Order: sequence, then C-alpha cells, then structure tokens
Amino acid sequence: MKLKGLAFDAYGTLYDVHSVIELCEQLFPGQGTALSNAWRLKQLQYSWQRSLMDRYADFWKVTEDGLVFAGNSLNLNLDPAKRKQLMEAYLSLKTFPDVLTGLKELSAAGYKLAILSNGAPRMLQEVTKNAKIEQFLAHIISVDELKIYKPSPRVYQLASKKLGTAPEATGFVSSNSWDIAGAASFGLTTFWINRGNQPGDELGFPAHRVVTKLTDLLPLLKA
Amino acid sequence: MKLKGLAFDAYGTLYDVHSVIELCEQLFPGQGTALSNAWRLKQLQYSWQRSLMDRYADFWKVTEDGLVFAGNSLNLNLDPAKRKQLMEAYLSLKTFPDVLTGLKELSAAGYKLAILSNGAPRMLQEVTKNAKIEQFLAHIISVDELKIYKPSPRVYQLASKKLGTAPEATGFVSSNSWDIAGAASFGLTTFWINRGNQPGDELGFPAHRVVTKLTDLLPLLKA
Repeated sequence: MKLKGLAFDAYGTLYDVHSVIELCEQLFPGQGTALSNAWRLKQLQYSWQRSLMDRYADFWKVTEDGLVFAGNSLNLNLDPAKRKQLMEAYLSLKTFPDVLTGLKELSAAGYKLAILSNGAPRMLQEVTKNAKIEQFLAHIISVDELKIYKPSPRVYQLASKKLGTAPEATGFVSSNSWDIAGAASFGLTTFWINRGNQPGDELGFPAHRVVTKLTDLLPLLKA
Repeated sequence: MKLKGLAFDAYGTLYDVHSVIELCEQLFPGQGTALSNAWRLKQLQYSWQRSLMDRYADFWKVTEDGLVFAGNSLNLNLDPAKRKQLMEAYLSLKTFPDVLTGLKELSAAGYKLAILSNGAPRMLQEVTKNAKIEQFLAHIISVDELKIYKPSPRVYQLASKKLGTAPEATGFVSSNSWDIAGAASFGLTTFWINRGNQPGDELGFPAHRVVTKLTDLLPLLKA
C-alpha cells in the first residue's frame, strides 16, 4: 500500500477510557459500568444528533451533557464535585499498551501521523501531552474547526488536507467500526483496530483491513 | 395555543413496538429483550450515521441492517426465515391504548393530523392500515422524500409544509426526547409523550409541554 499519512482516532483507539470506568465505580459503587456505558452512549448520540440538528456544541459540552443525562437516567446524585472529577478524567487517559511502540515504529518508518478526533482542541492537547505521545504526531486535528462531528465526510477530508496527503495516500485507523465506515465512504484506506473481536457495523463500508493492535500496522503497510 | 396542525411520530409514539419484543423472545428464549434493545439502538444509530455520511438508505434497509448487527453481536442464529418474521412484525404493530381515542378527539376538534416518521412509505402505509387509524390522518409523511433522517430540521419543516400550517401553528408529538429537541430546534411547538417517566435529553431544546398520553393533548390545547 502506498500510504504516506495515517490519521488515528483518539478515544478508544489510542486512549483507553477504562480509567473513567474505574472512577465511575469508585464514585458510585456497583453502578460504575452502567454509568460509563450510558455516558459513552449518550456522548456519541448527542454528537450525531447535534450535527444533524445543525446545533454544534464542542465535545467537552457534549461529553458533560451525556454525563448529566446518564446520571439522571440512573438516579445518581451527580453533584458538581463528582461531575468535575469525572470530566477531568478525560484529560489524563492512559494509552493502550500497543500505542507507544506502534506510533514510534510508524513515525520512524517515515509516515506522517495525526490524531483525527471529535475531541475539543483543549481536550486533545491535554490528553496527548499527559500521555507523552506528542513527539510522534505531525498534527492534532479536531472536528471543532468544521463544527460537525464524525462520520461526516468533511471530517475525513480534513485529515487528508491537514496531512497534505491525497485521500488515496491517507490511511485512517480507528477502533470504532462506524468511524471506519465514515472514512471508507469518503475514500480513505481504513484499518479497524478490533481489540474486542466485535462484529462490524452494517453501514455498507467495511474496513479495508482488520487488526487487533497498532503494532500490527507496520508489517501490513510494508507487505 | 393557536395550533392548527399536529404531526405525530410513529414508532414508540403511536405504535407500540412491544409485539416485536415478544417475537424476539419467542424466537430466542431468554434473549428477547437484549435482542430488541440492541436492534432498536442500532436502527437509530444507523439512521443518524448514514444521514451524516450522506449515504441514505430507507428505513426498511436500516432496520434490517440493525437487526443483522444485533443478531451478530449476541451470537444468534438469525436465519432468513427468522429475519423475515421479525422484519414483518414492524408492519402489524398495535397502537398504544390511548392512541385511537386521542386521534379521534383531536380530529373531531378540527386539528389537521399527520404522521411524521423515519419509516419508509410502504412501512407506514401498511402499519397504519393494519391499525385502522388512517381515517384520522390527513397525511402520512415519510422522511424518504428528503433522503435524510430526524432530527434534521428539513424533516420538521416538511411537516409544516405538507400540513399547510405555518411552523408556529404546527405542533409535534413524540415519545422520543431527542426527536422533540429536533422539532423544537426547528421551531415547532412540541409535546413530549413521556409514558415511562424518563429524564429528558440534554440537547438544549426541552419540550414545550410534557404529557403521559395522547388523550392529555386536547384539554391542553383548549386551555
């Protein structure tokens, strides 16, 4: 494959949101998984619904709104201190174990790397800095400048534009199957990191390649 | 309130999808609720994601795709016969107990009534005919002619246009909180049928009025 640039989804692909689940469980014993599942679900739904409504709000706001709804739906007493603590967990997520080595190898092999994320610019800057992976990234690209969320084709076009690589020379890496479908529909070459052996989404645009970790990418690109 | 026309969401608002849940349970004992929840979730997600991707497919296709994914995610043996049976359950849904009386009262009081739904035209025609409520409806409006799903403002605009009532004279009734947000964001007067006492979605556009059944509407409109 003649790819020159690679864009990576952030949450769930590079950054493990498990520390958020742990904190949910610590604050609301026995309800941690239910809270974090409901939160993540609403966070994404609000990103799609607001995009369709032409009522963009940044991902910090959408994430907080999702948390408030999730708390209400589970009848939890989500006071301002707990809310703040949970939101701030998004700024110090750990990377998955394969991420540092994966990015280092791809960067050393000459690929231009970027993050392409729904995250608000401040969220992405902070989490990337805390995870110490900024040196491998040529760009940290947020949908915020477009005011629309994934899977709009405009978002995937932005990756190609910012990386300065033609769509056919731009790869996109995500652990979200619907995100892969959006990128493939626009015309990027897609790599689905399917860590949990999940079925793919039925959106008509399956991944070009499916792998289980970032360190699988370089051998595949070289082949 | 000086409303002249009222548009109603179909699935979950007029039509109870419970018969689908029953059939899921009959075909896959012990997994009925899990299957029907996963199915409904994916059906809606695909409608939002395809809209954002500019890859519209009609609601019959999106519903079947959601069913296939839900079956895969639960490792169910969803053979063609079972798939067909489940899809066809969508064509003979029962109305909620308050629907017939509610529509009859509103129609008799002179309001122009319509369905405004994601459903494909054939799905809406069949379910409405089977439920024997067509005589109360001036229009059965499907998003299909727009090739985009709720909550796009274009969908709610279509209700006003088809009913021939100005947005400010058009009411919208739904049991889906995010659907209410979309209609309110466009400028319709919204009535949330909150049968299950759920929290509202955090999308910045709460319902103008919240009721628990269709027969609550006429007293409210007269007041």
